[in-house]
Amino acid sequence: MELGTVIGNVWATRKEDELQGLKFLIVQPEHADRTNAGVPFVAVDRIGAGFGDQVLVTRGSAAANLSSSEKKIPIDALIIGIIDSVDVEKEVK
Amino acid sequence: MELGTVIGNVWATRKEDELQGLKFLIVQPEHADRTNAGVPFVAVDRIGAGFGDQVLVTRGSAAANLSSSEKKIPIDALIIGIIDSVDVEKEVK
Amino acid sequence: MELGTVIGNVWATRKEDELQGLKFLIVQPEHADRTNAGVPFVAVDRIGAGFGDQVLVTRGSAAANLSSSEKKIPIDALIIGIIDSVDVEKEVK
Amino acid sequence: MELGTVIGNVWATRKEDELQGLKFLIVQPEHADRTNAGVPFVAVDRIGAGFGDQVLVTRGSAAANLSSSEKKIPIDALIIGIIDSVDVEKEVK
Amino acid sequence: MELGTVIGNVWATRKEDELQGLKFLIVQPEHADRTNAGVPFVAVDRIGAGFGDQVLVTRGSAAANLSSSEKKIPIDALIIGIIDSVDVEKEVK
Repeated sequence: MELGTVIGNVWATRKEDELQGLKFLIVQPEHADRTNAGVPFVAVDRIGAGFGDQVLVTRGSAAANLSSSEKKIPIDALIIGIIDSVDVEKEVK
Repeated sequence: MELGTVIGNVWATRKEDELQGLKFLIVQPEHADRTNAGVPFVAVDRIGAGFGDQVLVTRGSAAANLSSSEKKIPIDALIIGIIDSVDVEKEVK
Repeated sequence: MELGTVIGNVWATRKEDELQGLKFLIVQPEHADRTNAGVPFVAVDRIGAGFGDQVLVTRGSAAANLSSSEKKIPIDALIIGIIDSVDVEKEVK
Repeated sequence: MELGTVIGNVWATRKEDELQGLKFLIVQPEHADRTNAGVPFVAVDRIGAGFGDQVLVTRGSAAANLSSSEKKIPIDALIIGIIDSVDVEKEVK
Repeated sequence: MELGTVIGNVWATRKEDELQGLKFLIVQPEHADRTNAGVPFVAVDRIGAGFGDQVLVTRGSAAANLSSSEKKIPIDALIIGIIDSVDVEKEVK
């Protein structure tokens, strides 16, 4: 999983049917000290993350392993947690 | 998911059987401000995207999680939405 | 999916059982204008691609979504089409 | 799989329901000689890894192939082993 | 798939239960001419590869598509063949 901060959102009226109602947020990936660590991407949020929240994101097809549905949907990034704190003894960039 | 713009298409008569009838578009990945963010790739489109549209794309095997079929097909990129607007408070490249 | 050209093949007598009989080709990934776009890799071909053909390749675990078998096999790249033509309005490298 | 060392942990009270109770550690990816090999990431640990342990990590959706559950969960990195020793005849960085 | 050479192995007594008995080898990814092509990684071997063998490796979750088990295990790299020969007409690095 990657750490990041929510920096925006995306609106798309026309989309694949099974994605109606999902919230799409833009996440800036970050190091543990919250400096930038790569290119922003779009992730689905189901736990109420908002602008400026530090989040934990699962990327790749595992993002589609949603608890509430039997049917997998075509998403490749999911916000799985809102970070309370990060403890690092050594951080390398 | 990644943001991008449709810049072309690909024609292939001879292909894996289960891919007949699908539309293959070339997508230029972009940052939120629509500057380029990497190498163009080919994505399947089922929602009617066209040249110049800003789109949201799922990459990797989750792209094969199509609502209309039980059988998964061998595709690794799917246009899942046509973007209406993108709001970003902070954008880092 | 990625565009590329078939530049070679790989022979391996000793392999995982379920891969017997498959053809393994080396693909040079390319931009739409056929200039190089990265490191060559090995892909399975089931549609008769040969040396010099421009092909469309699915990478990652979706390559194992083969129509002819219920059982997924351990392959991570599949040639899904032989390109007739590519139309690009804008190409960025 | 990748080699790495556990350098920290992440706390997130609010998260996707099925992730309650899991331990999230920060892993610094490393070469065989334990020099750094990339950006730290967050991995789930179920085998008792701790600060400073050298670990073997599976990344991507295969990390969700957990033995104890039928239902796959949305995680993309799992510590699968705590390293006793690494033998390398040739190491290239 | 990627080409590479076996350069070492990894020992881990404490690991996820379903991985007991598997052999973990370190693979140096290589170009077709056997020059280095990236950072070494750890792959599972079930076909008897040894030090110095040139091998074909599947990476990502498709590595878990093992013929002998119904249950997928958390591995992300599998040696699928031991190379007899590689023929390349054009090789670009």
